[in-house]
Amino acid sequence: MPSNKPISLSVKAIVRDDQSRWLLLKRSKSSKSNAGRWDLPGGKMDACERVDQAIIREICEETGLDVAIIRVVGASESESPERRIAYLIFECAIESGEVRLSDEHEEYAWVECKDLPSMDIIPQFRAIAQDYCNRTK
Amino acid sequence: MPSNKPISLSVKAIVRDDQSRWLLLKRSKSSKSNAGRWDLPGGKMDACERVDQAIIREICEETGLDVAIIRVVGASESESPERRIAYLIFECAIESGEVRLSDEHEEYAWVECKDLPSMDIIPQFRAIAQDYCNRTK
Repeated sequence: MPSNKPISLSVKAIVRDDQSRWLLLKRSKSSKSNAGRWDLPGGKMDACERVDQAIIREICEETGLDVAIIRVVGASESESPERRIAYLIFECAIESGEVRLSDEHEEYAWVECKDLPSMDIIPQFRAIAQDYCNRTK
Repeated sequence: MPSNKPISLSVKAIVRDDQSRWLLLKRSKSSKSNAGRWDLPGGKMDACERVDQAIIREICEETGLDVAIIRVVGASESESPERRIAYLIFECAIESGEVRLSDEHEEYAWVECKDLPSMDIIPQFRAIAQDYCNRTK
Protein backbone atom coordinates (compact mmCIF):
# COMPACT_ATOMS: atom_id res chain seq x y z
CA MET A 1 0.00 0.00 0.00
CA PRO A 2 1.22 3.53 -0.67
CA SER A 3 2.33 5.55 2.33
CA ASN A 4 2.40 9.31 2.66
CA LYS A 5 5.73 9.47 4.46
CA PRO A 6 8.29 11.79 2.89
CA ILE A 7 10.97 9.97 0.91
CA SER A 8 14.59 10.98 1.31
CA LEU A 9 17.25 9.95 -1.15
CA SER A 10 20.46 8.17 -0.23
CA VAL A 11 23.30 7.42 -2.63
CA LYS A 12 25.33 4.25 -2.08
CA ALA A 13 28.16 2.56 -3.94
CA ILE A 14 29.83 -0.68 -4.79
CA VAL A 15 33.43 0.59 -4.59
CA ARG A 16 35.72 -1.74 -6.54
CA ASP A 17 39.47 -2.11 -6.23
CA ASP A 18 41.67 -3.25 -9.12
CA GLN A 19 41.16 -6.93 -8.21
CA SER A 20 37.35 -6.61 -8.51
CA ARG A 21 36.89 -6.89 -4.77
CA TRP A 22 34.47 -4.40 -3.26
CA LEU A 23 34.19 -2.60 -0.01
CA LEU A 24 31.73 -3.26 2.81
CA LEU A 25 31.63 -1.26 6.03
CA LYS A 26 30.42 -2.66 9.35
CA ARG A 27 27.98 -0.29 11.05
CA SER A 28 29.01 0.65 14.55
CA LYS A 29 27.34 -0.94 17.57
CA SER A 30 25.79 2.43 18.44
CA SER A 31 24.01 2.83 15.05
CA LYS A 32 20.30 3.52 15.43
CA SER A 33 19.49 0.92 12.77
CA ASN A 34 21.19 -2.27 11.61
CA ALA A 35 23.95 -1.96 14.22
CA GLY A 36 26.83 -4.37 13.56
CA ARG A 37 25.66 -5.29 10.05
CA TRP A 38 27.57 -4.76 6.81
CA ASP A 39 26.64 -1.72 4.76
CA LEU A 40 27.61 -0.17 1.43
CA PRO A 41 29.49 3.13 1.64
CA GLY A 42 27.43 6.26 0.92
CA GLY A 43 24.66 8.19 2.60
CA LYS A 44 21.96 10.77 2.48
CA MET A 45 22.16 13.53 -0.09
CA ASP A 46 22.48 17.03 1.30
CA ALA A 47 19.75 19.48 0.31
CA CYS A 48 20.43 20.95 -3.15
CA GLU A 49 23.44 18.69 -3.77
CA ARG A 50 24.04 17.07 -7.17
CA VAL A 51 23.97 13.27 -7.17
CA ASP A 52 27.56 12.79 -8.38
CA GLN A 53 28.88 15.30 -5.84
CA ALA A 54 26.92 13.54 -3.07
CA ILE A 55 28.32 10.06 -3.72
CA ILE A 56 31.91 11.30 -4.05
CA ARG A 57 31.57 13.35 -0.83
CA GLU A 58 29.94 10.55 1.16
CA ILE A 59 32.53 7.96 0.15
CA CYS A 60 35.38 10.31 0.97
CA GLU A 61 33.87 11.12 4.40
CA GLU A 62 33.23 7.47 5.27
CA THR A 63 36.29 5.78 3.77
CA GLY A 64 38.93 8.41 2.92
CA LEU A 65 38.88 7.19 -0.71
CA ASP A 66 38.56 9.35 -3.81
CA VAL A 67 36.41 7.56 -6.37
CA ALA A 68 35.20 7.93 -9.93
CA ILE A 69 31.64 6.94 -10.82
CA ILE A 70 31.46 4.10 -13.33
CA ARG A 71 27.75 3.43 -13.70
CA VAL A 72 24.35 3.08 -12.06
CA VAL A 73 23.84 -0.45 -10.73
CA GLY A 74 20.38 -0.34 -9.18
CA ALA A 75 17.97 1.01 -6.61
CA SER A 76 16.41 -0.10 -3.38
CA GLU A 77 14.39 1.25 -0.48
CA SER A 78 13.78 0.95 3.24
CA GLU A 79 11.06 2.12 5.58
CA SER A 80 10.99 2.87 9.27
CA PRO A 81 8.08 4.13 11.39
CA GLU A 82 9.18 7.71 10.67
CA ARG A 83 10.41 7.73 7.09
CA ARG A 84 11.08 6.10 3.73
CA ILE A 85 14.48 6.12 2.10
CA ALA A 86 15.09 5.48 -1.61
CA TYR A 87 18.63 4.31 -2.44
CA LEU A 88 20.34 4.91 -5.78
CA ILE A 89 23.37 2.64 -6.08
CA PHE A 90 26.42 3.29 -8.26
CA GLU A 91 29.50 1.29 -9.12
CA CYS A 92 32.62 3.34 -8.39
CA ALA A 93 36.35 2.80 -8.93
CA ILE A 94 39.04 4.00 -6.57
CA GLU A 95 41.10 6.90 -7.87
CA SER A 96 43.33 7.39 -4.81
CA GLY A 97 43.54 7.03 -1.05
CA GLU A 98 43.70 4.35 1.65
CA VAL A 99 40.71 3.25 3.72
CA ARG A 100 40.31 5.33 6.86
CA LEU A 101 36.97 4.85 8.64
CA SER A 102 34.80 7.49 10.29
CA ASP A 103 33.14 6.73 13.63
CA GLU A 104 29.99 5.54 11.83
CA HIS A 105 31.74 2.23 11.12
CA GLU A 106 33.93 -0.07 13.14
CA GLU A 107 35.41 -2.37 10.52
CA TYR A 108 35.78 -2.76 6.77
CA ALA A 109 36.15 -5.71 4.42
CA TRP A 110 37.13 -6.16 0.79
CA VAL A 111 34.80 -8.88 -0.45
CA GLU A 112 34.34 -11.03 -3.49
CA CYS A 113 31.04 -12.50 -4.62
CA LYS A 114 31.90 -15.86 -3.06
CA ASP A 115 32.09 -14.14 0.38
CA LEU A 116 28.55 -12.74 0.25
CA PRO A 117 26.67 -15.68 1.82
CA SER A 118 28.73 -15.36 5.01
CA MET A 119 28.26 -11.57 5.37
CA ASP A 120 25.30 -10.13 7.29
CA ILE A 121 24.54 -7.36 4.79
CA ILE A 122 21.75 -4.92 5.68
CA PRO A 123 18.48 -6.18 4.18
CA GLN A 124 17.93 -3.41 1.61
CA PHE A 125 21.20 -4.23 -0.21
CA ARG A 126 21.11 -8.04 -0.29
CA ALA A 127 19.30 -8.32 -3.62
CA ILE A 128 21.43 -5.57 -5.20
CA ALA A 129 24.65 -7.29 -4.10
CA GLN A 130 23.44 -10.61 -5.52
CA ASP A 131 22.29 -9.01 -8.81
CA TYR A 132 25.65 -7.29 -9.15
CA CYS A 133 27.45 -10.60 -8.70
CA ASN A 134 25.18 -12.37 -11.18
CA ARG A 135 25.80 -9.69 -13.82
CA THR A 136 29.57 -9.53 -13.37
CA LYS A 137 30.16 -13.32 -13.37
CA MET B 1 35.38 3.89 -18.23
CA PRO B 2 34.39 6.58 -15.75
CA SER B 3 33.50 9.98 -17.16
CA ASN B 4 33.72 13.33 -15.40
CA LYS B 5 30.46 14.67 -16.77
CA PRO B 6 28.05 15.96 -14.12
CA ILE B 7 25.19 13.57 -13.39
CA SER B 8 21.68 14.90 -13.10
CA LEU B 9 18.88 12.91 -11.52
CA SER B 10 15.58 12.15 -13.18
CA VAL B 11 12.62 10.45 -11.51
CA LYS B 12 10.38 8.23 -13.62
CA ALA B 13 7.39 6.02 -12.91
CA ILE B 14 5.46 2.98 -13.88
CA VAL B 15 1.97 4.43 -13.30
CA ARG B 16 -0.54 1.59 -12.87
CA ASP B 17 -4.28 1.74 -13.24
CA ASP B 18 -6.64 -0.59 -11.37
CA GLN B 19 -6.41 -3.22 -14.14
CA SER B 20 -2.59 -3.43 -13.79
CA ARG B 21 -2.06 -1.66 -17.10
CA TRP B 22 0.59 1.03 -17.07
CA LEU B 23 1.08 4.29 -18.87
CA LEU B 24 3.55 5.05 -21.64
CA LEU B 25 3.86 8.46 -23.28
CA LYS B 26 5.04 8.98 -26.87
CA ARG B 27 7.69 11.68 -27.07
CA SER B 28 6.81 14.45 -29.49
CA LYS B 29 8.44 14.59 -32.94
CA SER B 30 10.26 17.77 -31.88
CA SER B 31 11.98 16.14 -28.86
CA LYS B 32 15.75 16.63 -28.90
CA SER B 33 16.30 12.96 -28.08
CA ASN B 34 14.32 9.79 -28.75
CA ALA B 35 11.64 11.66 -30.75
CA GLY B 36 8.58 9.51 -31.42
CA ARG B 37 9.60 6.78 -28.98
CA TRP B 38 7.65 5.62 -25.93
CA ASP B 39 8.78 6.99 -22.57
CA LEU B 40 7.85 6.59 -18.91
CA PRO B 41 6.23 9.62 -17.27
CA GLY B 42 8.52 11.68 -15.04
CA GLY B 43 11.47 14.00 -15.48
CA LYS B 44 14.33 15.90 -14.03
CA MET B 45 14.28 16.85 -10.37
CA ASP B 46 14.28 20.56 -9.65
CA ALA B 47 17.15 21.86 -7.54
CA CYS B 48 16.48 21.30 -3.83
CA GLU B 49 13.31 19.30 -4.46
CA ARG B 50 12.52 16.15 -2.46
CA VAL B 51 12.30 12.97 -4.50
CA ASP B 52 8.65 12.18 -3.68
CA GLN B 53 7.59 15.75 -4.44
CA ALA B 54 9.47 15.61 -7.76
CA ILE B 55 7.80 12.45 -9.06
CA ILE B 56 4.31 13.59 -8.01
CA ARG B 57 4.87 17.02 -9.63
CA GLU B 58 6.34 15.61 -12.86
CA ILE B 59 3.53 13.09 -13.35
CA CYS B 60 0.91 15.73 -12.71
CA GLU B 61 2.53 18.13 -15.21
CA GLU B 62 2.91 15.49 -17.91
CA THR B 63 -0.30 13.51 -17.48
CA GLY B 64 -2.74 15.46 -15.29
CA LEU B 65 -2.87 12.49 -12.90
CA ASP B 66 -2.46 12.60 -9.12
CA VAL B 67 -0.52 9.55 -7.98
CA ALA B 68 0.64 7.85 -4.81
CA ILE B 69 4.09 6.28 -4.66
CA ILE B 70 3.99 2.52 -4.08
CA ARG B 71 7.65 1.47 -4.21
CA VAL B 72 11.05 1.82 -5.86
CA VAL B 73 11.33 -0.47 -8.89
CA GLY B 74 14.82 0.20 -10.21
CA ALA B 75 17.37 2.52 -11.70
CA SER B 76 18.92 3.21 -15.07
CA GLU B 77 21.10 5.76 -16.84
CA SER B 78 21.77 7.46 -20.16
CA GLU B 79 24.62 9.49 -21.53
CA SER B 80 24.81 12.11 -24.25
CA PRO B 81 27.87 14.07 -25.43
CA GLU B 82 27.03 16.78 -22.85
CA ARG B 83 25.71 14.97 -19.81
CA ARG B 84 24.85 11.85 -17.85
CA ILE B 85 21.43 11.24 -16.38
CA ALA B 86 20.68 8.74 -13.59
CA TYR B 87 17.06 7.58 -13.42
CA LEU B 88 15.32 6.42 -10.27
CA ILE B 89 12.12 4.59 -11.16
CA PHE B 90 9.08 4.19 -8.91
CA GLU B 91 5.84 2.28 -9.17
CA CYS B 92 2.89 4.63 -8.65
CA ALA B 93 -0.87 4.17 -8.40
CA ILE B 94 -3.42 6.67 -9.67
CA GLU B 95 -5.28 8.56 -6.95
CA SER B 96 -7.39 10.80 -9.22
CA GLY B 97 -7.55 12.53 -12.60
CA GLU B 98 -7.86 11.73 -16.30
CA VAL B 99 -4.90 11.68 -18.70
CA ARG B 100 -4.26 15.09 -20.25
CA LEU B 101 -0.93 15.39 -22.07
CA SER B 102 1.49 18.33 -22.10
CA ASP B 103 3.16 19.36 -25.37
CA GLU B 104 6.17 17.15 -24.55
CA HIS B 105 4.15 14.13 -25.68
CA GLU B 106 1.84 13.45 -28.58
CA GLU B 107 0.12 10.22 -27.58
CA TYR B 108 -0.35 7.91 -24.62
CA ALA B 109 -1.03 4.22 -24.21
CA TRP B 110 -2.11 1.94 -21.38
CA VAL B 111 -0.02 -1.17 -21.86
CA GLU B 112 0.20 -4.67 -20.45
CA CYS B 113 3.35 -6.74 -20.37
CA LYS B 114 2.27 -8.66 -23.47
CA ASP B 115 2.30 -5.36 -25.44
CA LEU B 116 5.94 -4.53 -24.66
CA PRO B 117 7.61 -6.30 -27.61
CA SER B 118 5.67 -4.16 -30.08
CA MET B 119 6.43 -0.82 -28.36
CA ASP B 120 9.53 1.20 -29.27
CA ILE B 121 10.45 2.14 -25.69
CA ILE B 122 13.43 4.44 -25.20
CA PRO B 123 16.56 2.33 -24.66
CA GLN B 124 17.26 3.22 -21.02
CA PHE B 125 13.90 1.81 -19.86
CA ARG B 126 13.69 -1.45 -21.84
CA ALA B 127 15.41 -3.60 -19.22
CA ILE B 128 13.44 -1.99 -16.36
CA ALA B 129 10.14 -2.60 -18.17
CA GLN B 130 11.05 -6.23 -18.77
CA ASP B 131 12.24 -6.75 -15.17
CA TYR B 132 9.02 -5.23 -13.89
CA CYS B 133 6.98 -7.63 -16.01
CA ASN B 134 9.05 -10.62 -14.92
CA ARG B 135 8.57 -9.75 -11.25
CA THR B 136 4.83 -9.08 -11.47
CA LYS B 137 3.96 -12.22 -13.49
